[in-house]
Amino acid sequence: TICYHEDFQEMVENVIAWNRLFELHSELIFQGRCAEDVMKAQNEGRTAIIFGFQNCSPIEDDIGLVEICHQLGVRFMQLSYNNQSLLATGCYEDDDSGITRMGRQVIKEMNRVGLVVDMSHSARRSTLEAIEISARPIAITHANPFFWCEALRNKTDDVLKAIGDSGGMLGFSLYPHHLKDKSACLLEDFCGMIARTAEMIGVERIGIGSDLCQNQPDNVVEWMRNGTWSNERDFGEGSAGLAGFPEQPEWFRDNRDFENIFSCLRKTGFSENEVERIAGLNWLEFFEKSFGP
Amino acid sequence: TICYHEDFQEMVENVIAWNRLFELHSELIFQGRCAEDVMKAQNEGRTAIIFGFQNCSPIEDDIGLVEICHQLGVRFMQLSYNNQSLLATGCYEDDDSGITRMGRQVIKEMNRVGLVVDMSHSARRSTLEAIEISARPIAITHANPFFWCEALRNKTDDVLKAIGDSGGMLGFSLYPHHLKDKSACLLEDFCGMIARTAEMIGVERIGIGSDLCQNQPDNVVEWMRNGTWSNERDFGEGSAGLAGFPEQPEWFRDNRDFENIFSCLRKTGFSENEVERIAGLNWLEFFEKSFGP
Repeated sequence: TICYHEDFQEMVENVIAWNRLFELHSELIFQGRCAEDVMKAQNEGRTAIIFGFQNCSPIEDDIGLVEICHQLGVRFMQLSYNNQSLLATGCYEDDDSGITRMGRQVIKEMNRVGLVVDMSHSARRSTLEAIEISARPIAITHANPFFWCEALRNKTDDVLKAIGDSGGMLGFSLYPHHLKDKSACLLEDFCGMIARTAEMIGVERIGIGSDLCQNQPDNVVEWMRNGTWSNERDFGEGSAGLAGFPEQPEWFRDNRDFENIFSCLRKTGFSENEVERIAGLNWLEFFEKSFGP
Repeated sequence: TICYHEDFQEMVENVIAWNRLFELHSELIFQGRCAEDVMKAQNEGRTAIIFGFQNCSPIEDDIGLVEICHQLGVRFMQLSYNNQSLLATGCYEDDDSGITRMGRQVIKEMNRVGLVVDMSHSARRSTLEAIEISARPIAITHANPFFWCEALRNKTDDVLKAIGDSGGMLGFSLYPHHLKDKSACLLEDFCGMIARTAEMIGVERIGIGSDLCQNQPDNVVEWMRNGTWSNERDFGEGSAGLAGFPEQPEWFRDNRDFENIFSCLRKTGFSENEVERIAGLNWLEFFEKSFGP
Protein backbone atom coordinates (compact mmCIF):
# COMPACT_ATOMS: atom_id res chain seq x y z
CA THR A 1 0.00 0.00 0.00
CA ILE A 2 1.46 3.30 -1.17
CA CYS A 3 -1.46 5.56 -0.27
CA TYR A 4 -4.68 5.90 1.70
CA HIS A 5 -5.30 9.65 1.36
CA GLU A 6 -2.03 11.00 -0.06
CA ASP A 7 -1.98 13.39 -3.00
CA PHE A 8 0.52 12.88 -5.83
CA GLN A 9 3.48 14.55 -4.14
CA GLU A 10 2.85 12.82 -0.80
CA MET A 11 2.58 9.47 -2.61
CA VAL A 12 5.91 10.12 -4.35
CA GLU A 13 7.46 10.63 -0.90
CA ASN A 14 6.21 7.17 0.04
CA VAL A 15 7.79 5.72 -3.12
CA ILE A 16 11.05 7.46 -2.24
CA ALA A 17 10.94 5.80 1.20
CA TRP A 18 10.37 2.40 -0.44
CA ASN A 19 13.16 2.99 -2.95
CA ARG A 20 15.49 3.55 0.01
CA LEU A 21 14.30 0.27 1.59
CA PHE A 22 14.87 -1.59 -1.70
CA GLU A 23 18.39 -0.19 -1.78
CA LEU A 24 19.19 -0.95 1.87
CA HIS A 25 17.68 -4.45 1.91
CA SER A 26 18.23 -5.70 -1.61
CA GLU A 27 19.04 -9.19 -0.31
CA LEU A 28 15.41 -9.46 0.93
CA ILE A 29 13.15 -7.32 -1.23
CA PHE A 30 12.86 -5.63 -4.61
CA GLN A 31 10.14 -3.79 -6.54
CA GLY A 32 7.88 -6.07 -8.56
CA ARG A 33 6.55 -4.66 -11.82
CA CYS A 34 5.34 -7.76 -13.72
CA ALA A 35 4.32 -11.38 -13.14
CA GLU A 36 7.82 -12.62 -13.99
CA ASP A 37 9.16 -10.68 -11.01
CA VAL A 38 7.19 -13.03 -8.74
CA MET A 39 8.98 -16.05 -10.27
CA LYS A 40 12.28 -14.22 -10.02
CA ALA A 41 11.64 -13.56 -6.33
CA GLN A 42 10.87 -17.24 -5.73
CA ASN A 43 14.04 -18.34 -7.54
CA GLU A 44 16.19 -15.88 -5.62
CA GLY A 45 14.57 -16.37 -2.21
CA ARG A 46 13.51 -12.74 -2.05
CA THR A 47 10.16 -10.92 -1.94
CA ALA A 48 8.82 -8.85 -4.83
CA ILE A 49 6.83 -5.90 -3.50
CA ILE A 50 4.16 -4.62 -5.87
CA PHE A 51 2.76 -1.14 -5.25
CA GLY A 52 -0.97 -0.57 -4.88
CA PHE A 53 -3.14 2.44 -4.00
CA GLN A 54 -6.02 2.12 -1.52
CA ASN A 55 -7.43 5.35 -2.96
CA CYS A 56 -7.33 7.37 -6.16
CA SER A 57 -6.13 10.49 -4.31
CA PRO A 58 -2.64 10.45 -5.94
CA ILE A 59 -4.07 11.09 -9.41
CA GLU A 60 -5.85 14.15 -7.97
CA ASP A 61 -8.07 15.54 -10.76
CA ASP A 62 -5.52 14.87 -13.50
CA ILE A 63 -6.06 11.85 -15.76
CA GLY A 64 -2.49 12.22 -17.03
CA LEU A 65 -1.25 11.04 -13.62
CA VAL A 66 -2.69 7.54 -14.26
CA GLU A 67 0.13 6.69 -16.66
CA ILE A 68 2.71 8.45 -14.45
CA CYS A 69 1.68 6.24 -11.52
CA HIS A 70 2.00 3.15 -13.71
CA GLN A 71 5.48 4.32 -14.71
CA LEU A 72 6.35 4.50 -11.00
CA GLY A 73 5.38 0.83 -10.74
CA VAL A 74 1.88 1.12 -9.29
CA ARG A 75 -0.20 -1.87 -10.45
CA PHE A 76 -3.44 -1.62 -8.45
CA MET A 77 -5.56 1.44 -7.76
CA GLN A 78 -8.80 1.51 -5.81
CA LEU A 79 -11.31 3.90 -7.36
CA SER A 80 -12.34 4.95 -3.86
CA TYR A 81 -11.42 4.32 -0.29
CA ASN A 82 -14.29 4.43 2.25
CA ASN A 83 -15.62 7.85 1.22
CA GLN A 84 -16.83 9.33 -2.05
CA SER A 85 -13.95 10.01 -4.43
CA LEU A 86 -13.84 11.86 -7.73
CA LEU A 87 -14.30 8.47 -9.43
CA ALA A 88 -16.61 6.27 -7.34
CA THR A 89 -18.47 5.90 -4.05
CA GLY A 90 -16.92 4.34 -0.95
CA CYS A 91 -18.66 1.74 1.19
CA TYR A 92 -19.23 4.12 4.14
CA GLU A 93 -21.29 6.70 2.25
CA ASP A 94 -25.07 6.64 2.72
CA ASP A 95 -25.74 6.74 -1.02
CA ASP A 96 -23.91 5.35 -4.00
CA SER A 97 -24.29 7.18 -7.31
CA GLY A 98 -22.03 4.82 -9.24
CA ILE A 99 -19.05 5.65 -11.42
CA THR A 100 -18.70 9.38 -12.10
CA ARG A 101 -17.98 11.12 -15.41
CA MET A 102 -14.31 11.32 -14.51
CA GLY A 103 -14.40 7.71 -13.27
CA ARG A 104 -15.47 6.45 -16.70
CA GLN A 105 -12.57 8.27 -18.30
CA VAL A 106 -10.06 7.03 -15.71
CA ILE A 107 -11.14 3.37 -16.02
CA LYS A 108 -10.52 3.61 -19.77
CA GLU A 109 -7.07 5.08 -19.13
CA MET A 110 -6.25 2.43 -16.49
CA ASN A 111 -7.24 -0.26 -18.98
CA ARG A 112 -4.94 1.30 -21.56
CA VAL A 113 -1.80 1.44 -19.43
CA GLY A 114 -2.31 -1.74 -17.38
CA LEU A 115 -3.26 -0.39 -13.97
CA VAL A 116 -5.75 -2.74 -12.28
CA VAL A 117 -9.09 -1.36 -11.07
CA ASP A 118 -9.53 -2.44 -7.43
CA MET A 119 -12.94 -2.01 -5.74
CA SER A 120 -12.15 -3.43 -2.29
CA HIS A 121 -13.48 -0.42 -0.37
CA SER A 122 -16.09 0.77 -2.86
CA ALA A 123 -19.85 0.60 -2.54
CA ARG A 124 -22.04 -1.94 -4.33
CA ARG A 125 -23.40 -0.02 -7.31
CA SER A 126 -20.03 1.62 -8.05
CA THR A 127 -18.41 -1.83 -8.01
CA LEU A 128 -20.99 -3.37 -10.36
CA GLU A 129 -20.62 -0.44 -12.75
CA ALA A 130 -16.80 -0.61 -12.65
CA ILE A 131 -16.95 -4.31 -13.63
CA GLU A 132 -19.28 -3.43 -16.50
CA ILE A 133 -17.33 -0.39 -17.73
CA SER A 134 -13.84 -1.89 -17.49
CA ALA A 135 -12.67 -3.63 -20.65
CA ARG A 136 -10.28 -5.75 -18.55
CA PRO A 137 -11.06 -7.92 -15.50
CA ILE A 138 -10.93 -6.04 -12.23
CA ALA A 139 -10.02 -7.09 -8.70
CA ILE A 140 -11.38 -6.93 -5.20
CA THR A 141 -7.99 -7.44 -3.63
CA HIS A 142 -9.09 -7.67 0.00
CA ALA A 143 -12.65 -8.32 1.18
CA ASN A 144 -14.87 -11.24 2.14
CA PRO A 145 -18.39 -12.31 1.20
CA PHE A 146 -21.21 -10.47 2.94
CA PHE A 147 -23.12 -13.77 3.26
CA TRP A 148 -20.46 -14.88 5.78
CA CYS A 149 -19.81 -11.64 7.65
CA GLU A 150 -22.12 -8.63 7.31
CA ALA A 151 -19.48 -5.90 7.34
CA LEU A 152 -19.99 -2.84 5.11
CA ARG A 153 -16.65 -3.69 3.52
CA ASN A 154 -17.70 -7.21 2.49
CA LYS A 155 -19.31 -8.00 -0.86
CA THR A 156 -22.84 -9.11 -1.68
CA ASP A 157 -23.58 -12.17 -3.83
CA ASP A 158 -24.33 -10.14 -6.97
CA VAL A 159 -20.96 -8.38 -6.74
CA LEU A 160 -19.12 -11.69 -6.20
CA LYS A 161 -20.88 -13.27 -9.16
CA ALA A 162 -20.12 -10.30 -11.40
CA ILE A 163 -16.43 -10.51 -10.44
CA GLY A 164 -16.43 -14.23 -11.21
CA ASP A 165 -18.29 -13.95 -14.52
CA SER A 166 -15.96 -11.21 -15.74
CA GLY A 167 -12.74 -13.10 -15.04
CA GLY A 168 -11.78 -10.91 -12.09
CA MET A 169 -10.26 -11.83 -8.75
CA LEU A 170 -11.38 -11.80 -5.12
CA GLY A 171 -8.68 -11.81 -2.44
CA PHE A 172 -9.91 -12.97 0.97
CA SER A 173 -9.21 -10.60 3.83
CA LEU A 174 -7.77 -11.62 7.19
CA TYR A 175 -8.42 -8.26 8.82
CA PRO A 176 -10.52 -9.13 11.90
CA HIS A 177 -13.27 -6.58 11.14
CA HIS A 178 -14.01 -8.54 7.93
CA LEU A 179 -14.10 -11.93 9.68
CA LYS A 180 -17.04 -13.73 11.25
CA ASP A 181 -16.51 -13.39 15.05
CA LYS A 182 -13.60 -11.01 14.30
CA SER A 183 -10.42 -11.88 16.22
CA ALA A 184 -12.12 -15.04 17.53
CA CYS A 185 -12.82 -16.32 14.01
CA LEU A 186 -12.13 -20.04 13.59
CA LEU A 187 -9.79 -21.23 10.87
CA GLU A 188 -12.23 -24.00 9.85
CA ASP A 189 -15.01 -21.43 9.47
CA PHE A 190 -12.77 -19.21 7.31
CA CYS A 191 -11.87 -22.16 5.04
CA GLY A 192 -15.50 -23.25 4.85
CA MET A 193 -16.36 -19.77 3.60
CA ILE A 194 -13.63 -20.09 0.97
CA ALA A 195 -15.13 -23.40 -0.19
CA ARG A 196 -18.59 -21.85 -0.48
CA THR A 197 -17.21 -18.91 -2.45
CA ALA A 198 -15.26 -21.23 -4.76
CA GLU A 199 -18.51 -23.07 -5.54
CA MET A 200 -20.21 -19.77 -6.25
CA ILE A 201 -17.68 -18.04 -8.52
CA GLY A 202 -15.06 -20.67 -9.39
CA VAL A 203 -11.81 -21.68 -7.72
CA GLU A 204 -9.86 -19.82 -10.45
CA ARG A 205 -11.29 -16.49 -9.30
CA ILE A 206 -10.11 -16.50 -5.69
CA GLY A 207 -6.90 -15.88 -3.76
CA ILE A 208 -5.63 -14.44 -0.52
CA GLY A 209 -5.80 -10.68 0.02
CA SER A 210 -4.62 -10.85 3.62
CA ASP A 211 -4.96 -7.09 4.41
CA LEU A 212 -2.35 -7.83 7.07
CA CYS A 213 -1.05 -4.70 8.77
CA GLN A 214 1.88 -6.40 10.41
CA ASN A 215 3.76 -4.44 13.09
CA GLN A 216 2.10 -1.18 12.12
CA PRO A 217 1.54 1.36 14.91
CA ASP A 218 -2.01 2.55 15.62
CA ASN A 219 -1.35 5.96 14.06
CA VAL A 220 -1.48 4.13 10.71
CA VAL A 221 -5.07 3.01 11.28
CA GLU A 222 -5.89 6.55 12.47
CA TRP A 223 -4.60 7.91 9.15
CA MET A 224 -6.47 5.22 7.20
CA ARG A 225 -9.75 6.23 8.83
CA ASN A 226 -9.42 9.97 9.19
CA GLY A 227 -6.90 11.31 6.71
CA THR A 228 -7.56 15.04 6.77
CA TRP A 229 -11.19 15.00 5.64
CA SER A 230 -12.88 15.53 9.01
CA ASN A 231 -12.53 17.61 12.15
CA GLU A 232 -14.16 14.81 14.10
CA ARG A 233 -12.58 11.47 14.88
CA ASP A 234 -13.85 8.54 12.84
CA PHE A 235 -13.41 5.00 14.17
CA GLY A 236 -14.26 3.30 10.89
CA GLU A 237 -14.79 -0.41 11.42
CA GLY A 238 -13.54 -0.04 15.00
CA SER A 239 -15.08 1.86 17.90
CA ALA A 240 -14.03 4.28 20.64
CA GLY A 241 -13.28 1.29 22.85
CA LEU A 242 -11.35 -0.51 20.10
CA ALA A 243 -9.72 2.37 18.26
CA GLY A 244 -6.44 0.71 17.30
CA PHE A 245 -5.61 -2.25 15.10
CA PRO A 246 -7.65 -5.26 16.20
CA GLU A 247 -5.87 -8.44 17.28
CA GLN A 248 -5.26 -10.98 14.52
CA PRO A 249 -6.85 -14.44 14.94
CA GLU A 250 -4.39 -16.80 16.61
CA TRP A 251 -4.00 -18.91 13.43
CA PHE A 252 -2.90 -15.92 11.34
CA ARG A 253 -0.67 -13.70 13.48
CA ASP A 254 1.80 -12.77 10.75
CA ASN A 255 3.10 -13.72 7.31
CA ARG A 256 4.64 -16.95 8.60
CA ASP A 257 1.15 -18.36 9.24
CA PHE A 258 0.01 -18.76 5.62
CA GLU A 259 0.68 -22.49 5.86
CA ASN A 260 -2.03 -22.82 8.55
CA ILE A 261 -4.57 -21.67 5.98
CA PHE A 262 -3.27 -23.91 3.20
CA SER A 263 -3.27 -27.06 5.33
CA CYS A 264 -6.80 -26.34 6.55
CA LEU A 265 -7.91 -25.82 2.93
CA ARG A 266 -6.60 -29.33 2.17
CA LYS A 267 -8.67 -30.70 5.08
CA THR A 268 -11.69 -28.76 3.80
CA GLY A 269 -11.49 -30.83 0.60
CA PHE A 270 -9.51 -28.70 -1.85
CA SER A 271 -7.06 -30.63 -4.05
CA GLU A 272 -3.35 -29.81 -4.00
CA ASN A 273 -3.69 -28.00 -7.33
CA GLU A 274 -6.64 -25.96 -6.02
CA VAL A 275 -4.70 -24.99 -2.90
CA GLU A 276 -1.81 -23.84 -5.10
CA ARG A 277 -4.23 -21.78 -7.19
CA ILE A 278 -5.68 -20.10 -4.10
CA ALA A 279 -2.22 -19.69 -2.55
CA GLY A 280 -0.89 -17.69 -5.47
CA LEU A 281 -1.21 -19.20 -8.96
CA ASN A 282 -4.50 -17.43 -9.64
CA TRP A 283 -3.00 -14.08 -8.75
CA LEU A 284 0.05 -14.89 -10.88
CA GLU A 285 -2.15 -15.58 -13.92
CA PHE A 286 -4.07 -12.38 -13.22
CA PHE A 287 -0.82 -10.39 -12.98
CA GLU A 288 0.34 -11.85 -16.34
CA LYS A 289 -2.63 -10.46 -18.22
CA SER A 290 -3.16 -7.26 -16.23
CA PHE A 291 0.07 -5.34 -15.68
CA GLY A 292 0.96 -4.24 -19.21
CA PRO A 293 -0.70 -2.27 -21.98
CA THR B 1 -13.34 33.47 -9.78
CA ILE B 2 -10.09 32.12 -8.38
CA CYS B 3 -10.49 28.49 -9.44
CA TYR B 4 -12.36 26.07 -11.64
CA HIS B 5 -10.20 22.94 -11.22
CA GLU B 6 -7.06 24.23 -9.49
CA ASP B 7 -5.57 22.48 -6.47
CA PHE B 8 -4.41 24.51 -3.47
CA GLN B 9 -1.01 25.47 -4.85
CA GLU B 10 -2.39 26.36 -8.29
CA MET B 11 -5.09 28.48 -6.63
CA VAL B 12 -2.43 30.30 -4.58
CA GLU B 13 -0.68 31.15 -7.87
CA ASN B 14 -3.93 32.75 -9.04
CA VAL B 15 -4.09 34.78 -5.82
CA ILE B 16 -0.50 35.88 -6.38
CA ALA B 17 -1.44 37.10 -9.85
CA TRP B 18 -4.39 39.05 -8.39
CA ASN B 19 -2.21 40.52 -5.64
CA ARG B 20 0.06 41.85 -8.36
CA LEU B 21 -2.93 43.39 -10.17
CA PHE B 22 -4.14 45.00 -6.92
CA GLU B 23 -0.67 46.48 -6.49
CA LEU B 24 -0.33 47.69 -10.10
CA HIS B 25 -3.86 49.11 -10.38
CA SER B 26 -4.65 50.28 -6.88
CA GLU B 27 -6.41 53.35 -8.24
CA LEU B 28 -9.05 51.04 -9.79
CA ILE B 29 -9.32 47.87 -7.73
CA PHE B 30 -8.64 46.36 -4.33
CA GLN B 31 -9.42 43.08 -2.58
CA GLY B 32 -12.79 43.04 -0.81
CA ARG B 33 -13.00 40.99 2.38
CA CYS B 34 -16.18 42.28 4.04
CA ALA B 35 -19.41 44.13 3.26
CA GLU B 36 -17.88 47.45 4.36
CA ASP B 37 -15.33 47.13 1.56
CA VAL B 38 -18.17 47.48 -0.94
CA MET B 39 -19.16 50.84 0.62
CA LYS B 40 -15.54 51.87 0.71
CA ALA B 41 -15.22 51.06 -2.99
CA GLN B 42 -18.28 53.16 -3.80
CA ASN B 43 -16.98 56.11 -1.76
CA GLU B 44 -13.57 55.95 -3.43
CA GLY B 45 -14.77 55.28 -6.98
CA ARG B 46 -12.95 51.96 -7.09
CA THR B 47 -14.04 48.31 -7.39
CA ALA B 48 -13.76 45.80 -4.55
CA ILE B 49 -12.97 42.35 -5.94
CA ILE B 50 -14.16 39.49 -3.76
CA PHE B 51 -12.64 36.05 -4.36
CA GLY B 52 -14.84 33.02 -5.01
CA PHE B 53 -14.19 29.40 -5.97
CA GLN B 54 -16.25 27.69 -8.67
CA ASN B 55 -15.09 24.36 -7.24
CA CYS B 56 -13.84 22.89 -3.97
CA SER B 57 -10.66 21.57 -5.61
CA PRO B 58 -8.36 23.99 -3.71
CA ILE B 59 -9.21 22.43 -0.35
CA GLU B 60 -8.19 19.05 -1.82
CA ASP B 61 -9.01 16.41 0.82
CA ASP B 62 -7.91 18.60 3.74
CA ILE B 63 -10.60 20.28 5.84
CA GLY B 64 -7.92 22.50 7.42
CA LEU B 65 -7.60 24.31 4.08
CA VAL B 66 -11.13 25.76 4.47
CA GLU B 67 -9.94 28.28 7.07
CA ILE B 68 -6.71 28.89 5.14
CA CYS B 69 -8.73 29.84 2.05
CA HIS B 70 -10.87 32.20 4.17
CA GLN B 71 -7.68 33.78 5.49
CA LEU B 72 -6.63 34.39 1.86
CA GLY B 73 -9.87 36.31 1.40
CA VAL B 74 -12.02 33.69 -0.32
CA ARG B 75 -15.68 34.31 0.56
CA PHE B 76 -17.64 31.92 -1.69
CA MET B 77 -16.91 28.28 -2.45
CA GLN B 78 -18.99 26.02 -4.66
CA LEU B 79 -19.20 22.51 -3.24
CA SER B 80 -18.90 21.15 -6.77
CA TYR B 81 -18.40 22.37 -10.27
CA ASN B 82 -20.14 20.37 -13.05
CA ASN B 83 -18.76 16.96 -11.99
CA GLN B 84 -18.83 14.95 -8.78
CA SER B 85 -16.53 16.42 -6.17
CA LEU B 86 -15.41 15.07 -2.81
CA LEU B 87 -18.27 17.09 -1.27
CA ALA B 88 -21.26 17.10 -3.62
CA THR B 89 -22.57 16.16 -7.05
CA GLY B 90 -22.32 18.46 -10.06
CA CYS B 91 -25.20 19.15 -12.44
CA TYR B 92 -23.68 17.17 -15.33
CA GLU B 93 -23.47 13.81 -13.54
CA ASP B 94 -26.15 11.22 -14.32
CA ASP B 95 -26.86 10.55 -10.64
CA ASP B 96 -26.79 12.72 -7.57
CA SER B 97 -26.04 11.04 -4.24
CA GLY B 98 -26.26 14.25 -2.23
CA ILE B 99 -23.76 15.68 0.24
CA THR B 100 -20.93 13.25 1.07
CA ARG B 101 -19.49 12.41 4.49
CA MET B 102 -16.69 14.89 3.91
CA GLY B 103 -19.19 17.41 2.52
CA ARG B 104 -21.11 17.47 5.82
CA GLN B 105 -17.91 18.16 7.73
CA VAL B 106 -16.81 20.88 5.30
CA ILE B 107 -20.17 22.71 5.38
CA LYS B 108 -19.89 22.86 9.18
CA GLU B 109 -16.36 24.26 8.89
CA MET B 110 -17.43 26.80 6.23
CA ASN B 111 -20.25 27.92 8.54
CA ARG B 112 -17.72 28.36 11.35
CA VAL B 113 -15.23 30.54 9.48
CA GLY B 114 -17.67 32.50 7.29
CA LEU B 115 -17.10 30.99 3.86
CA VAL B 116 -20.36 30.96 1.89
CA VAL B 117 -21.65 27.67 0.45
CA ASP B 118 -22.42 28.26 -3.25
CA MET B 119 -24.37 25.61 -5.18
CA SER B 120 -24.54 27.29 -8.61
CA HIS B 121 -23.18 24.27 -10.54
CA SER B 122 -24.41 21.52 -8.21
CA ALA B 123 -27.15 19.00 -8.86
CA ARG B 124 -30.62 19.19 -7.34
CA ARG B 125 -30.47 16.77 -4.42
CA SER B 126 -27.02 17.95 -3.35
CA THR B 127 -28.30 21.54 -3.37
CA LEU B 128 -31.40 20.75 -1.31
CA GLU B 129 -29.26 18.85 1.22
CA ALA B 130 -26.69 21.66 1.42
CA ILE B 131 -29.47 24.15 2.25
CA GLU B 132 -30.73 21.79 4.95
CA ILE B 133 -27.33 20.97 6.45
CA SER B 134 -25.92 24.49 6.43
CA ALA B 135 -26.57 26.45 9.62
CA ARG B 136 -26.21 29.70 7.66
CA PRO B 137 -28.02 30.80 4.48
CA ILE B 138 -26.33 29.65 1.29
CA ALA B 139 -26.15 31.16 -2.19
CA ILE B 140 -26.68 30.21 -5.77
CA THR B 141 -24.53 33.01 -7.07
CA HIS B 142 -25.16 32.54 -10.80
CA ALA B 143 -28.03 30.51 -12.29
CA ASN B 144 -31.57 31.05 -13.54
CA PRO B 145 -34.89 29.30 -12.92
CA PHE B 146 -35.43 26.07 -14.83
CA PHE B 147 -39.08 27.09 -15.42
CA TRP B 148 -37.79 29.81 -17.74
CA CYS B 149 -34.89 28.03 -19.44
CA GLU B 150 -34.43 24.27 -19.19
CA ALA B 151 -30.65 24.17 -18.90
CA LEU B 152 -29.04 21.58 -16.61
CA ARG B 153 -27.42 24.49 -14.78
CA ASN B 154 -30.70 26.22 -13.98
CA LYS B 155 -32.67 25.53 -10.80
CA THR B 156 -36.00 23.81 -10.32
CA ASP B 157 -38.86 25.38 -8.35
CA ASP B 158 -38.22 23.31 -5.20
CA VAL B 159 -34.59 24.45 -5.09
CA LEU B 160 -35.58 28.11 -5.59
CA LYS B 161 -38.19 27.89 -2.84
CA ALA B 162 -35.74 26.25 -0.45
CA ILE B 163 -33.21 29.02 -1.11
CA GLY B 164 -35.89 31.64 -0.49
CA ASP B 165 -37.28 30.02 2.67
CA SER B 166 -33.80 29.67 4.18
CA GLY B 167 -32.80 33.31 3.69
CA GLY B 168 -30.35 32.53 0.91
CA MET B 169 -29.64 34.35 -2.33
CA LEU B 170 -30.12 33.67 -6.04
CA GLY B 171 -27.99 35.66 -8.48
CA PHE B 172 -29.39 35.73 -12.01
CA SER B 173 -26.99 34.63 -14.72
CA LEU B 174 -26.42 36.48 -17.98
CA TYR B 175 -24.37 33.69 -19.55
CA PRO B 176 -26.20 32.95 -22.81
CA HIS B 177 -26.41 29.17 -22.21
CA HIS B 178 -28.59 29.93 -19.14
CA LEU B 179 -30.89 32.32 -21.01
CA LYS B 180 -34.09 31.57 -22.88
CA ASP B 181 -33.17 31.84 -26.60
CA LYS B 182 -29.50 32.16 -25.53
CA SER B 183 -27.72 35.09 -27.22
CA ALA B 184 -31.03 36.17 -28.78
CA CYS B 185 -32.72 36.48 -25.38
CA LEU B 186 -34.87 39.59 -25.04
CA LEU B 187 -34.28 42.00 -22.16
CA GLU B 188 -38.04 42.22 -21.46
CA ASP B 189 -38.23 38.43 -21.22
CA PHE B 190 -35.28 38.36 -18.80
CA CYS B 191 -36.89 41.00 -16.59
CA GLY B 192 -40.26 39.22 -16.72
CA MET B 193 -38.50 36.10 -15.42
CA ILE B 194 -37.02 38.16 -12.59
CA ALA B 195 -40.51 39.42 -11.68
CA ARG B 196 -41.89 35.88 -11.61
CA THR B 197 -39.00 34.69 -9.42
CA ALA B 198 -39.45 37.63 -7.05
CA GLU B 199 -43.10 36.64 -6.61
CA MET B 200 -42.04 33.06 -5.93
CA ILE B 201 -39.23 33.54 -3.39
CA GLY B 202 -39.30 37.24 -2.40
CA VAL B 203 -37.59 40.29 -3.85
CA GLU B 204 -35.13 40.24 -0.90
CA ARG B 205 -33.71 36.91 -2.03
CA ILE B 206 -32.57 37.87 -5.53
CA GLY B 207 -29.71 39.76 -7.15
CA ILE B 208 -27.53 39.75 -10.24
CA GLY B 209 -24.94 36.98 -10.65
CA SER B 210 -23.95 38.04 -14.15
CA ASP B 211 -21.46 35.15 -14.82
CA LEU B 212 -19.92 37.61 -17.29
CA CYS B 213 -16.65 36.37 -18.79
CA GLN B 214 -15.65 39.69 -20.22
CA ASN B 215 -12.72 39.71 -22.68
CA GLN B 216 -11.69 36.18 -21.74
CA PRO B 217 -10.06 34.08 -24.46
CA ASP B 218 -11.67 30.76 -25.42
CA ASN B 219 -8.95 28.75 -23.69
CA VAL B 220 -10.59 29.86 -20.43
CA VAL B 221 -13.88 28.16 -21.34
CA GLU B 222 -11.87 25.09 -22.47
CA TRP B 223 -10.27 24.92 -19.00
CA MET B 224 -13.65 25.45 -17.31
CA ARG B 225 -15.12 22.49 -19.15
CA ASN B 226 -12.21 20.08 -19.35
CA GLY B 227 -9.71 20.83 -16.63
CA THR B 228 -7.54 17.72 -16.62
CA TRP B 229 -10.22 15.16 -15.78
CA SER B 230 -10.76 13.71 -19.27
CA ASN B 231 -8.79 12.60 -22.30
CA GLU B 232 -11.75 13.49 -24.47
CA ARG B 233 -12.93 16.99 -25.23
CA ASP B 234 -16.04 18.10 -23.42
CA PHE B 235 -18.11 20.96 -24.81
CA GLY B 236 -20.18 21.47 -21.67
CA GLU B 237 -23.12 23.73 -22.38
CA GLY B 238 -21.68 24.47 -25.82
CA SER B 239 -21.18 22.13 -28.78
CA ALA B 240 -18.52 21.25 -31.33
CA GLY B 241 -19.91 23.97 -33.59
CA LEU B 242 -20.03 26.50 -30.76
CA ALA B 243 -17.01 25.55 -28.67
CA GLY B 244 -15.95 29.01 -27.51
CA PHE B 245 -17.62 31.63 -25.38
CA PRO B 246 -21.10 32.35 -26.74
CA GLU B 247 -21.99 35.88 -27.78
CA GLN B 248 -23.57 38.04 -25.07
CA PRO B 249 -27.10 39.38 -25.75
CA GLU B 250 -26.89 42.85 -27.30
CA TRP B 251 -28.37 44.50 -24.18
CA PHE B 252 -25.65 43.10 -21.90
CA ARG B 253 -22.35 43.16 -23.76
CA ASP B 254 -20.18 44.16 -20.81
CA ASN B 255 -20.21 45.63 -17.30
CA ARG B 256 -21.29 49.05 -18.58
CA ASP B 257 -24.70 47.62 -19.56
CA PHE B 258 -26.09 46.98 -16.06
CA GLU B 259 -28.22 50.12 -16.38
CA ASN B 260 -30.12 48.52 -19.29
CA ILE B 261 -31.34 45.83 -16.91
CA PHE B 262 -32.21 48.24 -14.09
CA SER B 263 -34.24 50.54 -16.32
CA CYS B 264 -36.13 47.60 -17.82
CA LEU B 265 -36.85 46.32 -14.26
CA ARG B 266 -38.47 49.71 -13.54
CA LYS B 267 -40.61 49.33 -16.65
CA THR B 268 -41.51 45.79 -15.56
CA GLY B 269 -43.10 47.29 -12.45
CA PHE B 270 -40.42 47.09 -9.76
CA SER B 271 -40.23 50.10 -7.42
CA GLU B 272 -37.03 52.13 -7.14
CA ASN B 273 -36.27 50.49 -3.79
CA GLU B 274 -36.82 47.03 -5.26
CA VAL B 275 -34.50 47.80 -8.19
CA GLU B 276 -31.84 48.94 -5.72
CA ARG B 277 -32.27 45.73 -3.76
CA ILE B 278 -31.84 43.59 -6.89
CA ALA B 279 -28.99 45.80 -8.13
CA GLY B 280 -26.88 45.21 -5.04
CA LEU B 281 -28.46 45.94 -1.64
CA ASN B 282 -29.61 42.34 -1.18
CA TRP B 283 -26.10 41.05 -1.82
CA LEU B 284 -24.70 43.70 0.52
CA GLU B 285 -27.00 42.55 3.34
CA PHE B 286 -26.04 38.96 2.61
CA PHE B 287 -22.33 39.84 2.71
CA GLU B 288 -22.83 41.57 6.10
CA LYS B 289 -24.09 38.42 7.79
CA SER B 290 -22.05 35.84 5.87
CA PHE B 291 -18.38 36.79 5.66
CA GLY B 292 -17.27 36.52 9.28
CA PRO B 293 -17.29 33.87 12.00
